Amino acid sequence: MGIIVHKYGGTSVGDIEKIKNVARRLIDTQKKRHDVVCVVSAMAGETDRLIKLANDLTDSPDAREYDVLVATGEQVSIALLAMAIISLGGKARSFTGHQVKILTDESFSKAKIMSIDTKRILKEVKDGYIVVVAGFQGVDEDGNVTTLGRGGSDTSAVALAAALNADQCDIYTDVDGVYTADPNICPKAKKLKKISYEEMLEMASLGAKVLQTRSVEIAKKFNVPIHVRSSFSEEEGTMVTREDEEMEKYVVSGVTYNRNESKLTISGIPDVPGVAAKIFKPIADANIVVDMIIQNASSAGHADLTFTVSKTDTKKALEILKAIGKKLGANRVSSDENIAKISIVGVGMKSHAGVASQFFSVLAHEGINIMMISTSEIKISCVVEEKYTELAVRILHDTFHLSPEER
Amino acid sequence: MGIIVHKYGGTSVGDIEKIKNVARRLIDTQKKRHDVVCVVSAMAGETDRLIKLANDLTDSPDAREYDVLVATGEQVSIALLAMAIISLGGKARSFTGHQVKILTDESFSKAKIMSIDTKRILKEVKDGYIVVVAGFQGVDEDGNVTTLGRGGSDTSAVALAAALNADQCDIYTDVDGVYTADPNICPKAKKLKKISYEEMLEMASLGAKVLQTRSVEIAKKFNVPIHVRSSFSEEEGTMVTREDEEMEKYVVSGVTYNRNESKLTISGIPDVPGVAAKIFKPIADANIVVDMIIQNASSAGHADLTFTVSKTDTKKALEILKAIGKKLGANRVSSDENIAKISIVGVGMKSHAGVASQFFSVLAHEGINIMMISTSEIKISCVVEEKYTELAVRILHDTFHLSPEER
Repeated sequence: MGIIVHKYGGTSVGDIEKIKNVARRLIDTQKKRHDVVCVVSAMAGETDRLIKLANDLTDSPDAREYDVLVATGEQVSIALLAMAIISLGGKARSFTGHQVKILTDESFSKAKIMSIDTKRILKEVKDGYIVVVAGFQGVDEDGNVTTLGRGGSDTSAVALAAALNADQCDIYTDVDGVYTADPNICPKAKKLKKISYEEMLEMASLGAKVLQTRSVEIAKKFNVPIHVRSSFSEEEGTMVTREDEEMEKYVVSGVTYNRNESKLTISGIPDVPGVAAKIFKPIADANIVVDMIIQNASSAGHADLTFTVSKTDTKKALEILKAIGKKLGANRVSSDENIAKISIVGVGMKSHAGVASQFFSVLAHEGINIMMISTSEIKISCVVEEKYTELAVRILHDTFHLSPEER
Repeated sequence: MGIIVHKYGGTSVGDIEKIKNVARRLIDTQKKRHDVVCVVSAMAGETDRLIKLANDLTDSPDAREYDVLVATGEQVSIALLAMAIISLGGKARSFTGHQVKILTDESFSKAKIMSIDTKRILKEVKDGYIVVVAGFQGVDEDGNVTTLGRGGSDTSAVALAAALNADQCDIYTDVDGVYTADPNICPKAKKLKKISYEEMLEMASLGAKVLQTRSVEIAKKFNVPIHVRSSFSEEEGTMVTREDEEMEKYVVSGVTYNRNESKLTISGIPDVPGVAAKIFKPIADANIVVDMIIQNASSAGHADLTFTVSKTDTKKALEILKAIGKKLGANRVSSDENIAKISIVGVGMKSHAGVASQFFSVLAHEGINIMMISTSEIKISCVVEEKYTELAVRILHDTFHLSPEER
């Protein structure tokens, strides 16, 4: 009898009726002869309510106390869910991050899980209890409450599944799986039956916000199969697993887009060693994450450099870049927010030539100009004008035959 | 430099502005060269909100999970208060019941404090931090969250003051002290400067809901001076301390009333040994607390027995009493909810004769019939018709000269 870990997000436990539904599902799962461990997030809206209290109080809430505050959201959920299970005739016990000792480092609000003490959980499941664990939270070595950052409950669930050597980790969410593209802009998008950890990582970081990136990294490291599915239906969702032969049949698994970045360019800088470092050191010091970077020589001895940052960082990055531009004697410093990054992801690309050229050709055929290109073994990304987002996603979806068969 | 413990109730931390005021007061207190430890309740309304969630879910919430749920209320308060102190330039750290290890027994929702580990608190105050501790909650030996029952934060504060050997425990509340009578029904009521633990215990259990009874018991046991005062003014409140000579100058310290009890009577029962036990055993087994008891022989070989219980228990007690009545061959079983218990309390009574007769005379003079009488060394209580409550309180207040001088 293996352990199965379920994880329910905030919308899945958004009100009393939904909590009862989750309770029923857990009891049913236990009846199918599983040991059941469940991770829950705060009820939808609750974390925002708590954050508002802190923000009403001060512009810069103390980091330690902030985590003490927001961790209460998940504590409310675990208590209610355990109560619901018991009221429906099941056996359940709830545990906070400190009670099962989800030990983290001491980086408040973005703590990393170091270890999980599984002794208590294993004892409780052996005694027939459904164990309900607060997601998103942990405790550091000094006993301080820590939280893992937004979406951290996915990470809690997968880390628990890894520590408990669980058979599977079911992530219940408000979408019913991972799609070949965003169904909102690509009506032909199909739900994927399977996707590899690597592909999911590329998808996740590219804007398909189904799973938190860190949770997929942990799943990959400890080989925990993740089943992403809807908490509002019984349908199968998408399995996120180790790459297998079946997956390689498909060249491309999905098309994604990201409209949350902007592009900055500094032109006419000296084309000498050390220039890139001079530019990106102050950017990094300002805690700005840079995504794509392109450098190319322009006129003799000079170069242009273009990179993308999150839209929210545009203003700050531009100021820094202007200051650097002056020092380096740059011709021009500019920014562009009207861009989108379009990507195709697929483990099959590794063994298929010509995917990139096909990608570029179809965009060219539609008159879409490519501003930047970035590739990895299993991904090709292009930056284009934002207005072409939907068009680009749809034609790439067609080009790589993502719709026809159920995958 | 002694430690001072402050305790703030739910209305004192009812919103962000009030939390900031509390923060300022704590910083000021620390500046007066005190080590400051503060206990807070949940924000006004928060505990009720949480209880409603549980009640919406099930009629009988699991006891363990109920405590996990309601304990979040105080955790929110400590985080916000610590944040407020820090945002105002102070140093603060919050601690939950488990973090400072307020060890309790395992009676969920009515746990008793067994011990408090003061090591961490003492270290933090030594390092200049204002230590903010969650009231109302603790942890049992298995690491389960427990709560102390309504009003438990008073108990947390006094127990902490005792464990820390604090100089004083200031209980900040929404009234500015202990009065000679309820000012709402007795306009001449005066705030007391001082009151003994014993008097306060009688007052508290008689319905003056200023301090939780258990907190006064602990204060008495460990001789912790309590200062009951308002969190909305700088005025001195009432000191609750060991009995001293000054107190004995006054015969009566206060008049109280309680309209939350009802009276049950069983008539014509055999006047033989063991009858009272036969009646009160099933009442106790039903978890009904009995307050006053009177038995008197009526006709030859028969007796009547009258006792009071909480109004909420009337129906249950009456059913039990009827069943017993049948077995014992009682003439009649009846109940009366229209009663009030009026009491006078004062350590001075110990050395003054004639107080009781004076009490009875003034009631008789106003035509108020006394249904039951109960006395202790420092208290006289009478049960009268409920409609006489205000009248009885006022005339007793006048009779025992509770208003003239500032006491």
